[in-house]
Amino acid sequence: MNIMEYIKYRPIGKIHSPFKEPKGTPIQPSAGKDVKGIVEVFSEYAEGLKDIDGFSHIILIIHLHLAIESKLVATPFMDDEPHGIFAIRGPSRPNPIGISIVRLDKVEGNILHILDLDIIDGTPLLDIKPYLPAFDEKEAVKIGWLENKHAHIAKFKR
Amino acid sequence: MNIMEYIKYRPIGKIHSPFKEPKGTPIQPSAGKDVKGIVEVFSEYAEGLKDIDGFSHIILIIHLHLAIESKLVATPFMDDEPHGIFAIRGPSRPNPIGISIVRLDKVEGNILHILDLDIIDGTPLLDIKPYLPAFDEKEAVKIGWLENKHAHIAKFKR
Repeated sequence: MNIMEYIKYRPIGKIHSPFKEPKGTPIQPSAGKDVKGIVEVFSEYAEGLKDIDGFSHIILIIHLHLAIESKLVATPFMDDEPHGIFAIRGPSRPNPIGISIVRLDKVEGNILHILDLDIIDGTPLLDIKPYLPAFDEKEAVKIGWLENKHAHIAKFKR
Repeated sequence: MNIMEYIKYRPIGKIHSPFKEPKGTPIQPSAGKDVKGIVEVFSEYAEGLKDIDGFSHIILIIHLHLAIESKLVATPFMDDEPHGIFAIRGPSRPNPIGISIVRLDKVEGNILHILDLDIIDGTPLLDIKPYLPAFDEKEAVKIGWLENKHAHIAKFKR
């Protein structure tokens, strides 16, 4: 492919959530602890869910469909200073792709019952991956401008 | 947006890597420990890198451009049994989106020098997010079919 071409994806499902608008939606799953939601995987992709029920946590890759304005520098929820968009986790990104690691409670056919939801109702789902500590946990981590924001982070930590 | 429409993204950069083909490319950053690579962020997005240099680890969201065949059930590298594509981490997904958490060594303008590279040369970059343990590390994790694959996982663990 030509690297400058558009990349096209198709939603494989959508999120059903009690949060109907950005206001009041938790900014991360850890802030939405125990909030229940449903991931509807469209039936044509249901076969891909085989054996997912053994995992306690799954990574949802979502299209942040309400993020209308892409900014390269923005002031995040957890600070009063602007930072580059690639140094923050907010939704107004050049490609509004979101990552949400949620708890998987129960699988019923093409329906995943999840906990710790931080996603707005109707959000298109692009992919699901199993969460694996061997791949997804890192050591000796430094968190840049967030180092001094422990009080803020604590609110979002489980 | 209509949920069934295509979602379009544009590459914001690309990966420069010593791995020129899938064969021999590490399957995860932990298997590519200390391998050096470069993330080239296209100059029009360089402003978005402000303050990223304070983070030790970044999440690269990439388009797995060489994954040609999408399968709903596949036998992963670490097992002899087939599993649903959403229960494994392989590239042949309905939407071939990859997540790679790498170490950030140095930032020079629009160039990020990274370590622990597991990505093939020329791979399009879709997004960069800072890695935050408060958001990205989970407790009481169960890893499904991988529970019995400790010997395999160990090879990929740092």
